[in-house]
Order: sequence, then structure tokens, then C-alpha cells
Amino acid sequence: MITIIASTNRPASSTLKLAKYYQKQMLNKGTEANLLSMAELPADFIQTDMFGSRSAAFEPIQQLITGTQKFLFVIPEYNGSFPGILKAFIDACTFPDSFYDKKAALVGLSSGTYGNVRGVEHFAGICSYLHMHVLPLRIHIPGIRKEMNADGDLFEEKTVKFVDEQVDKFLKF
Amino acid sequence: MITIIASTNRPASSTLKLAKYYQKQMLNKGTEANLLSMAELPADFIQTDMFGSRSAAFEPIQQLITGTQKFLFVIPEYNGSFPGILKAFIDACTFPDSFYDKKAALVGLSSGTYGNVRGVEHFAGICSYLHMHVLPLRIHIPGIRKEMNADGDLFEEKTVKFVDEQVDKFLKF
Amino acid sequence: MITIIASTNRPASSTLKLAKYYQKQMLNKGTEANLLSMAELPADFIQTDMFGSRSAAFEPIQQLITGTQKFLFVIPEYNGSFPGILKAFIDACTFPDSFYDKKAALVGLSSGTYGNVRGVEHFAGICSYLHMHVLPLRIHIPGIRKEMNADGDLFEEKTVKFVDEQVDKFLKF
Amino acid sequence: MITIIASTNRPASSTLKLAKYYQKQMLNKGTEANLLSMAELPADFIQTDMFGSRSAAFEPIQQLITGTQKFLFVIPEYNGSFPGILKAFIDACTFPDSFYDKKAALVGLSSGTYGNVRGVEHFAGICSYLHMHVLPLRIHIPGIRKEMNADGDLFEEKTVKFVDEQVDKFLKF
Repeated sequence: MITIIASTNRPASSTLKLAKYYQKQMLNKGTEANLLSMAELPADFIQTDMFGSRSAAFEPIQQLITGTQKFLFVIPEYNGSFPGILKAFIDACTFPDSFYDKKAALVGLSSGTYGNVRGVEHFAGICSYLHMHVLPLRIHIPGIRKEMNADGDLFEEKTVKFVDEQVDKFLKF
Repeated sequence: MITIIASTNRPASSTLKLAKYYQKQMLNKGTEANLLSMAELPADFIQTDMFGSRSAAFEPIQQLITGTQKFLFVIPEYNGSFPGILKAFIDACTFPDSFYDKKAALVGLSSGTYGNVRGVEHFAGICSYLHMHVLPLRIHIPGIRKEMNADGDLFEEKTVKFVDEQVDKFLKF
Repeated sequence: MITIIASTNRPASSTLKLAKYYQKQMLNKGTEANLLSMAELPADFIQTDMFGSRSAAFEPIQQLITGTQKFLFVIPEYNGSFPGILKAFIDACTFPDSFYDKKAALVGLSSGTYGNVRGVEHFAGICSYLHMHVLPLRIHIPGIRKEMNADGDLFEEKTVKFVDEQVDKFLKF
Repeated sequence: MITIIASTNRPASSTLKLAKYYQKQMLNKGTEANLLSMAELPADFIQTDMFGSRSAAFEPIQQLITGTQKFLFVIPEYNGSFPGILKAFIDACTFPDSFYDKKAALVGLSSGTYGNVRGVEHFAGICSYLHMHVLPLRIHIPGIRKEMNADGDLFEEKTVKFVDEQVDKFLKF
């Protein structure tokens, strides 16, 4: 089971659009993937679901994570790294069985110039701590607003090709 | 104005105890410092105080941050990095005036072996993005439970000395 | 083919001893591994073997790398990261076929307290760039001089067990 | 005393050109800066000048470093990080007096897309270990070949402005 994580709770985010684009590409290749946006987390999960507590609202999310074997994290750049909510989510999930020995692919995006190289680098360290196998091919997409059309589809040939290569490698991973 | 950030909302955390220890050391040297624990953040701030919104509950916290010139971050190791709530807090604060061109000192701690070397390294990258001046001397305290007595005071001579050196450098910074 | 990289040219280094210890453990499990120490590199390779040049002295080393499918890097902490000579060696090797899509395991060591957590974190970023598959289980050994006996064998039960687990995972990787 | 470090020994590098551009900008503002290229290091310094040894050929370089109070490192992206020779150079310099409590500014460049964000991030960790004060404003220049004219001068208005701002901050630092 595959789950794509849209790593922010920002409303109408490019991150969610890009996550849906990845989901569509996987479907085109015959694979259904779940999509979990950080916007779906309970608003108070930092209080209700940390340090061993578990709320009814978070429980189905935990079940989704527990049942997933492969994660694709779509990670925007916030303050020079990944969004805090993504890491708070990781901290809230049951340890170690949520992520241990599972697989991950990493996608960085930014409205600015560097495609969240640093945030993805940081997050890869966390993946290592969690004992995840990380796909070597990371994709970084700077200037995301110039890369997407009104339907949320990528259209720049080079980016489309890189994403396609990553999706292929991820599905075989 | 100095503010010490206890970077987790875990109840009764070693992080908060260590933050209070730092506060006490500063007071012993004649300097009053504020202390802000992530446990004081509104439980739903990830919904109410992101992306340009500001709640009445968060407003005094923002004012504290805005008024602060020097921050000392006490950062426990969660899942191989800093706690997500710390970064979510940074993401919630007004940009860029909350942290721009201000000063920071970094303290890592862990119950395990490595004193959050990696999490502090990650957080230093964020500090750089925020244009903070970071004190070169970072302190890392592994095995925190063996380092503190029942009053929350450090007692190992070597650790006490390192912390004292960092506090001196921070106050002159 | 497996090659263990002793990532320093320091004479009589703990790194080389530890690399030999890993080699011995693999042999005990029925697998022969090569060992390449950075001390074997030509003294002037930064001049003779960079930017597309290749010397006769370096050629057999390049052939060893090209023929290797799995690398285990034993990496001491120098100035808060990996030794420069390790990265200079990577820079000297033919790109991309030396490391592309191959496998790597990472071992950090230090005479001091943190077991080169940071240097291994940095090096993992380079492995990702090289498109290497990195074993999630990284080992860090602080205080290496207290961990080895006169024969260069580890003897602390906990460390021996961790290394054994890493070797098992690496051989199956 | 200021020294600009051109962090590669590649002949006719963009890095050296950019370092000279920085030197020229400083001169325009009335400050003379030294320039040290890694191409000036003895070809065999990894053998002659490590682990406490010091060659006659390296001695004047060590004196330059010892006498310098502010460093500006111009760092190209090699294999997803800083060049190995830069770190080998740091490893060869006398510790801790070469860099301890001195000041540093960081400039990343790449022929590709990301301006060595990752390599500069890694190097900043090393600077922290060395107890250097790092200027918060880091500059990253991707696509360096499109950014320089035949004289080695930057000409893109935005880049020129960023570099100018960094030079001003560095001189006041």
C-alpha cells in the first residue's frame, strides 16, 4: 500500500496539487495510491496525540500509516526546511512500527529558487533515524507556481520527465 | 531582552527543567530571562496561527518573540531531529521580524547517546535562513536523566562547566 | 563484490582497525570483503586524478571501485564532519558509474562523545546525490579508544551486538 | 585581515573567478583582501601536512590563515556537497587557532540548479565545530556560467545586488 503525504496544512496549497499530480501519474501506471494531507490532521493533535496518547480523530490516520508500506513525501520549503507540521505528525505517529523498515521517496518544492534542497536533506536524516529505505532519486521543484497549469498539472518537459522517472523508480522500489 | 525556548510541549519534560536551569544560571549572573515553553502554545495553533492568521491566544506569545533580541533554544531529540512543534512554532511566528538579525544559542539534549547533534544541526540551518546570528558554542547533553538531580539541577562537573561557559558567552554575545 | 572504505589516511588509525574488524566479521559469516584505506591513495592524487585525469597509480583503485557493488564506509570525525580526504577521493572517482545505484552502509566513529553523527549525516547527503541506496541502520561509535582491545577487536557487548546486526543487514541488503 | 578562499583546485575555475570578483568588490569599497585558491596547496599536502606535520611549502599558507580574522569561502558544488579538497585543507590547518572564534561568510555556486545549498549547509556545520561566527546571509549562485561575463564579472542585476549586500554585511561583521 502506497500513501502520498502532502506535507502542509496550508489551504489550497501547491503541495497538495503536486501530491495529486503524483497520485494521478501513479494511477496512469496502474497503481492506486492514498493521499494524506496534513490539512486533515485534527487541529489540536499536538495536544491530543503526542507522547503515547491517541484520539479517536487521529486513529484512522494512524491506521492508514500503519498499513502503508511505501510513502512519498511532498515537502514544501518553510523557513528554510520542511514544515513543522510534518515533523509534528511524525512525532505523533506510533513508534517504531509506523515507519520502521518501510520505503520512502522525497519530493521538495518551493516558490523560491532552491526547491527545498535543505528541507529534504533534513527530512532524509529523520527517515534514516526511522529506519526507512529512501529512494536515492530525490526531486526538487523550485518556482512551483511557474511549473503548474490551472489544473495543477506540471507541463515543463524537463520536470515532467524527472517526475516520471521518479514515479517509475518508486513503483519498482 | 532574552527568551529561553523550551522546545517541546511534553508534560514535565527534562527540556523544561533544563531551560529553567539555564534561566537560573543567567539570574545568578545578574540577567533576567523570559522562558517560553512550547506547552504554552494554544492547542490548535497549527490551525489558528499559520499563514498570516493570528489568534488572541497567540498574540502575547508573538509580542514576546517580537520584543526579544536573544534566544536560547533548548532542543530535545525527537525522531532523530528537533521536535516538530518547535518548527511549527517558528512557522507560526510573523516573518521576518520575529527572528531577523537577532541572536541565538543552541542546546541539544537527549535521553539517548548523541545529545541531539543532528537536530541542532538541522535547526542551525533554519536559524541561518531566518538570518539569526548563532553562537558558535553549541552544547549537547546526552543521557539527560543521569545529568540532573531531583531539583532539575545539573551536577556533573564537566557539564556544569560547559553550560557555564556557554551562558557567559551568550550573555556577552 | 563488497569493499570496506577506511576513510582516513592517518597512520595506525582506529578507523583502519575498525574497518578490519568489520572485514573479519563478514568473513566469519562467509563473505570476503575488500578493504581500501585512504592511506593507499597516491599522495598527490588531488592533482593527478581530478577533473577527468587518471594516473597509473590510481587506476587499480578506480577498478576496485568500479567493480564493487556494496560499500561500507567507516568514517571518523574530523573537525565536526567526515575527513576531507574521503570526499576528495569521491571527487576523484569516475562519475557517475563509480557509485550510481550501488549500495552503502555507514559507520561513524570518534574519540570524543558523538560518534560522528554529523559527519555521517553529511556523507549520507552525498550518497543520495550519487544515487546510492543507503542502509537505514547507521552505527555510531563514540569513545572508540575505550571500545577496542589491543587486537583491534570491539568487546563492549552492546557495540558488538549493534555491529553484528548491521553486518547481517548489510550482507542481505 | 580578510582572506577569500577559492575552495577548489580545478584549473580556470568559475570559483576562482567569483572569488576574484568578491575581492574586487571589497577593493571598490576600500578594503584589501587576500585570496587563497586551493590550487595553491602543495600537491601532496594530504601526506605532508596532516596529523601534526607541517611542510615548508605549506608553512606560508598556515601563516596566512593564522593571521586572518575574517574568511569568505567561495564553495562550488561537487558531488552534492563542498569539494573534498576544502575539507582536507581545513583538516590540515593547525587546530584550534586557525579558525577559532574568527568570522566567516559563505558563498555557494554551481553550474547546475541549486547553488550548492547542501554543500554550504554541510560546511556551516563544520564552521560551527570550529567555533566560527558565520554571517547569516549566505549567497547561492546556481547556473554560474550564465551569471558571469568574459571578464569574470557578475552582471545579472539581482545577483549583483545580493552579492553587494553580502559584501557590505561582511565588511561590517
